[in-house]
Amino acid sequence: MDRPLVGVIMGSTSDWETMREACVILEELEIVYEKRVVSAHRTPDEMFRYAEQAQDRGLEVIIAGAGGAAHLPGMIASKTELPVIGVPVKTSTLNGLDSLLSIVQMPGGVPVATVAIGKAGARNSALLAAEILGIKYPSIQAKLKERREAIRQQVLAEADLARYE
Amino acid sequence: MDRPLVGVIMGSTSDWETMREACVILEELEIVYEKRVVSAHRTPDEMFRYAEQAQDRGLEVIIAGAGGAAHLPGMIASKTELPVIGVPVKTSTLNGLDSLLSIVQMPGGVPVATVAIGKAGARNSALLAAEILGIKYPSIQAKLKERREAIRQQVLAEADLARYE
Amino acid sequence: MDRPLVGVIMGSTSDWETMREACVILEELEIVYEKRVVSAHRTPDEMFRYAEQAQDRGLEVIIAGAGGAAHLPGMIASKTELPVIGVPVKTSTLNGLDSLLSIVQMPGGVPVATVAIGKAGARNSALLAAEILGIKYPSIQAKLKERREAIRQQVLAEADLARYE
Amino acid sequence: MDRPLVGVIMGSTSDWETMREACVILEELEIVYEKRVVSAHRTPDEMFRYAEQAQDRGLEVIIAGAGGAAHLPGMIASKTELPVIGVPVKTSTLNGLDSLLSIVQMPGGVPVATVAIGKAGARNSALLAAEILGIKYPSIQAKLKERREAIRQQVLAEADLARYE
Amino acid sequence: MDRPLVGVIMGSTSDWETMREACVILEELEIVYEKRVVSAHRTPDEMFRYAEQAQDRGLEVIIAGAGGAAHLPGMIASKTELPVIGVPVKTSTLNGLDSLLSIVQMPGGVPVATVAIGKAGARNSALLAAEILGIKYPSIQAKLKERREAIRQQVLAEADLARYE
Amino acid sequence: MDRPLVGVIMGSTSDWETMREACVILEELEIVYEKRVVSAHRTPDEMFRYAEQAQDRGLEVIIAGAGGAAHLPGMIASKTELPVIGVPVKTSTLNGLDSLLSIVQMPGGVPVATVAIGKAGARNSALLAAEILGIKYPSIQAKLKERREAIRQQVLAEADLARYE
Amino acid sequence: MDRPLVGVIMGSTSDWETMREACVILEELEIVYEKRVVSAHRTPDEMFRYAEQAQDRGLEVIIAGAGGAAHLPGMIASKTELPVIGVPVKTSTLNGLDSLLSIVQMPGGVPVATVAIGKAGARNSALLAAEILGIKYPSIQAKLKERREAIRQQVLAEADLARYE
Amino acid sequence: MDRPLVGVIMGSTSDWETMREACVILEELEIVYEKRVVSAHRTPDEMFRYAEQAQDRGLEVIIAGAGGAAHLPGMIASKTELPVIGVPVKTSTLNGLDSLLSIVQMPGGVPVATVAIGKAGARNSALLAAEILGIKYPSIQAKLKERREAIRQQVLAEADLARYE
Repeated sequence: MDRPLVGVIMGSTSDWETMREACVILEELEIVYEKRVVSAHRTPDEMFRYAEQAQDRGLEVIIAGAGGAAHLPGMIASKTELPVIGVPVKTSTLNGLDSLLSIVQMPGGVPVATVAIGKAGARNSALLAAEILGIKYPSIQAKLKERREAIRQQVLAEADLARYE
Repeated sequence: MDRPLVGVIMGSTSDWETMREACVILEELEIVYEKRVVSAHRTPDEMFRYAEQAQDRGLEVIIAGAGGAAHLPGMIASKTELPVIGVPVKTSTLNGLDSLLSIVQMPGGVPVATVAIGKAGARNSALLAAEILGIKYPSIQAKLKERREAIRQQVLAEADLARYE
Repeated sequence: MDRPLVGVIMGSTSDWETMREACVILEELEIVYEKRVVSAHRTPDEMFRYAEQAQDRGLEVIIAGAGGAAHLPGMIASKTELPVIGVPVKTSTLNGLDSLLSIVQMPGGVPVATVAIGKAGARNSALLAAEILGIKYPSIQAKLKERREAIRQQVLAEADLARYE
Repeated sequence: MDRPLVGVIMGSTSDWETMREACVILEELEIVYEKRVVSAHRTPDEMFRYAEQAQDRGLEVIIAGAGGAAHLPGMIASKTELPVIGVPVKTSTLNGLDSLLSIVQMPGGVPVATVAIGKAGARNSALLAAEILGIKYPSIQAKLKERREAIRQQVLAEADLARYE
Repeated sequence: MDRPLVGVIMGSTSDWETMREACVILEELEIVYEKRVVSAHRTPDEMFRYAEQAQDRGLEVIIAGAGGAAHLPGMIASKTELPVIGVPVKTSTLNGLDSLLSIVQMPGGVPVATVAIGKAGARNSALLAAEILGIKYPSIQAKLKERREAIRQQVLAEADLARYE
Repeated sequence: MDRPLVGVIMGSTSDWETMREACVILEELEIVYEKRVVSAHRTPDEMFRYAEQAQDRGLEVIIAGAGGAAHLPGMIASKTELPVIGVPVKTSTLNGLDSLLSIVQMPGGVPVATVAIGKAGARNSALLAAEILGIKYPSIQAKLKERREAIRQQVLAEADLARYE
Repeated sequence: MDRPLVGVIMGSTSDWETMREACVILEELEIVYEKRVVSAHRTPDEMFRYAEQAQDRGLEVIIAGAGGAAHLPGMIASKTELPVIGVPVKTSTLNGLDSLLSIVQMPGGVPVATVAIGKAGARNSALLAAEILGIKYPSIQAKLKERREAIRQQVLAEADLARYE
Repeated sequence: MDRPLVGVIMGSTSDWETMREACVILEELEIVYEKRVVSAHRTPDEMFRYAEQAQDRGLEVIIAGAGGAAHLPGMIASKTELPVIGVPVKTSTLNGLDSLLSIVQMPGGVPVATVAIGKAGARNSALLAAEILGIKYPSIQAKLKERREAIRQQVLAEADLARYE
């Protein structure tokens, strides 16, 4: 399983701070991925080529983060039948509400699996990719179950708030 | 492939008008599905049981539609490692913005793959389910490609707007 | 009156900074309470158990704080007939508007008594709990009256803004 | 139990269409209530008198519905230690978002237990009042449990959506 | 003209930072005013008394600043026929959108003259008060004209942006 | 008092349906007014002339209604020291939120007395004009007091909701 | 001037009702245009080809209308140096706020000249195209001046509202 | 080409921080421009004069930045047939949503070419001005193509995110 299964792309290097949260979790789950800046507006042809070649290159899920008038996830989705997960990056003006609506409000025909604005969304994009891959690869699903149980134990360990006053 | 692969659930019978759009497309793609009212607030225990048994019953993707303080998709997602797609149903007061935020803004750890508000979102939930299944079942992915090409041809056939003045 | 009458729960330890405001006021009013992290998404079964046992354990009001797609107050409310007060915790992206709508827009059948976003809301959740208990326990209502009069006197003492220029 | 326990008030006769939903449920639960127009802006003195006399007249919970710059619930709450439930009435311009924010965003010190915008909120205001009274009057709590179980059975009876296609 | 013509009131001492902007301009225009904390929620009876006595005490315009569920301007307006100007104070959660809607969306019958959120609004509240008084007191109107011309000259003096690069 | 004291202007004849509500109340209060379409965008020079001549023509208050990017009230206000009342007309797309923000968010220096969106706001613009005139003309203030008392009596007469079930 | 100077494109035939408003005005101004459905999501390759060939085909301005997650204007703009005007089409759920933000919030580097939501915006897109062409073609600018003067006269003719009561 | 082709105006010197972004790009593209504070509200007559004389002075495009109730772009547009580009400046209260709606929601008849809120919008206003001029001046269009290709190369050079972990 050396070839990347997941492509993590983003519209700009400034999105990296958000999208690295996805990469950290993919590594934790030992899912091979690639990361790349693919700009819908500044490199549109390369974007289309990325989407066209994704499946042949062995990718099975694409995670795309973008902010503002965020067209990357939807345009990638229009060019591939692979599931595309969209991460709305927080913006300095409208806090990512623009990113969210630009990604989630896709017209009937071309879905984007949208997650929460910002870093929590980036983390969840990786987990969602893992859930999607998990229905094909039982080992990934097993890792998710372990991870979830570990988090549950961690929450329970701290649940009584004894340290707080 | 007689056992349902997709569970289409919704918080209330009043969501059916929206969620039937998902069912129509699943049928068109010949994906076996089941449909059911599972209310997070009125039948919470049954909801948990549904999520717990989903995988053993052979479901691979769950589509959950709900409106207002829409807790169904997120709570199902907290109880299964299957991918859960959330459809924000349009509401009479806030037009579904409440449904959207209640579904998409999940905290890190438990993702919900959120689609657009209302019927377009319901249609896309079925297509997203098909894309997810498509990475495991090539025949479903092939159907999606055919469908997409057919729609493309249809758009092109009407593109010149000759009939309109 | 040693057994807790009020359960103060929250979705995460990061909500403590907000929810401690509720605890401070409960202490001021000498209302016995317990505090606990109960996560709707990370410990769903424990959440249900908490709600199921609340009444038998002697709790009479539950205060639940959560942020983002805030499902904790509504899900607790779906599992108990005790009054549940929901505190929308401020979020870094949408400032708690998502938390507010996720908590307040409950469908008919399962109410959550929602208060303001953030710390002011947390303070008011404790006062609302006291008002609710006050119709059963006259001593609590008396304390509320005293507290209110004290605040009134304090406002009047500073009302002339003589110190300000 | 002939004296009203719950006062249902509203800012205008035009709010009756919404607030009757509360009254229907109070009757169903056999909770004695009174209903009255009390306008914060058009009859401010009468409003204050209503709040001042509420407790002596035997009321234990007040439900107040209002729309737009909805000041009624908060002003009543500033004049009594009884729990006050606020129902944001839907408005023709901003769909009740103005009503919601005017009611829920109370400053620390004077809580209003806010429910959803419109009729669902009105229904829930009555159920919340019953939950509050239920911690003092076991018979009311018992009725709530029965009602909830009946609704649960009803949801389950229709849950398979067999009638829908 | 020693008796105050304008009453500047606010819901809390924390509003002073905003409302002092109004006072600075009233002083600049040599309009006698008084300033006072009058809390709709914490001192409701004193608030009503303030409004009832305002006209007899010689006030001709009232400026009222408040934040969140801002009821002060509207409640004062319900108790006097003097013109009431409402200043929506910026809030830490919703940036004053809640304050704005709570003040401006008054029902037909009781107007509040609403200005912008925050300090710009506070400054404008004083200028609006001066415009209102100006139709009765020509000397105030004359001062406004002078002030406006001075500002115009100042803008023109800096208009070429020569200092900026 | 034959010369108009109040100028009621609006950006378009389509605003008349809203602004007539202001005229009805001015007539009821026997305040002489004029009404006119003055378009900030389609007749900018005439708009400026209107504002420049208003005071010499004897106007003492200007009511200006406009929708969308509503510039009329603010531009009139920039050209006269008379008090200007802005009525945000409801729009078909954003329900008048655009109108409201375009009118109320004036920068420091040029105030517009903003009222509620739509017909309620139009009614209140007339009452606010009367309150403003009332500090100069006692007969107008007296009429306002009568009107308010009449409305109070009317509310009280219907307050018991006896007709409603 | 037989070759089209303006390309009017839209994402779907359902946008025609809005975009015909642009065409009507282009005809009125005798500007040769073409109209076409070009879907960013359903015919992405054809969209790119349209943008690539626009300039060689003699187009000088492109007007693009789209709704929801409206990617058409921005993607066209990423593929041509011609000025692109974006028309946010009103949507049934969020009234076109989603369309507006998806079009206007373009990242630095690729501008879209955005106009108002809906039909008013469509009309203005044609006028903006004419203004842009007008700096190159004096005859078009002259037509705009005539049109504006005619509208001014029309507004003045109806300005006294004599017909309205 | 020594006479300015583009006029960059703004409502206040405080807008300079945003609008300098436009100037930087105009200089980079070697487009002669002028910059000036022109306040719709504080210097309305000078604003009208600016718009009236713009064309005779040789300007071909006007870029206007303003915040809050931003009337400058629309009022300039009402006084000239030159294309006017509006830049919504970010505000401290509503983050520029007020500026955006005040600029973009122009009524049919007078378009403003609106770009994104804040600095990204300012940058795009200069690029849009260049695109508009480019259809008349091929050398400007050529510079835009060069610039775009350079940016594309830069994105591709950094696209593999090799430096990031």
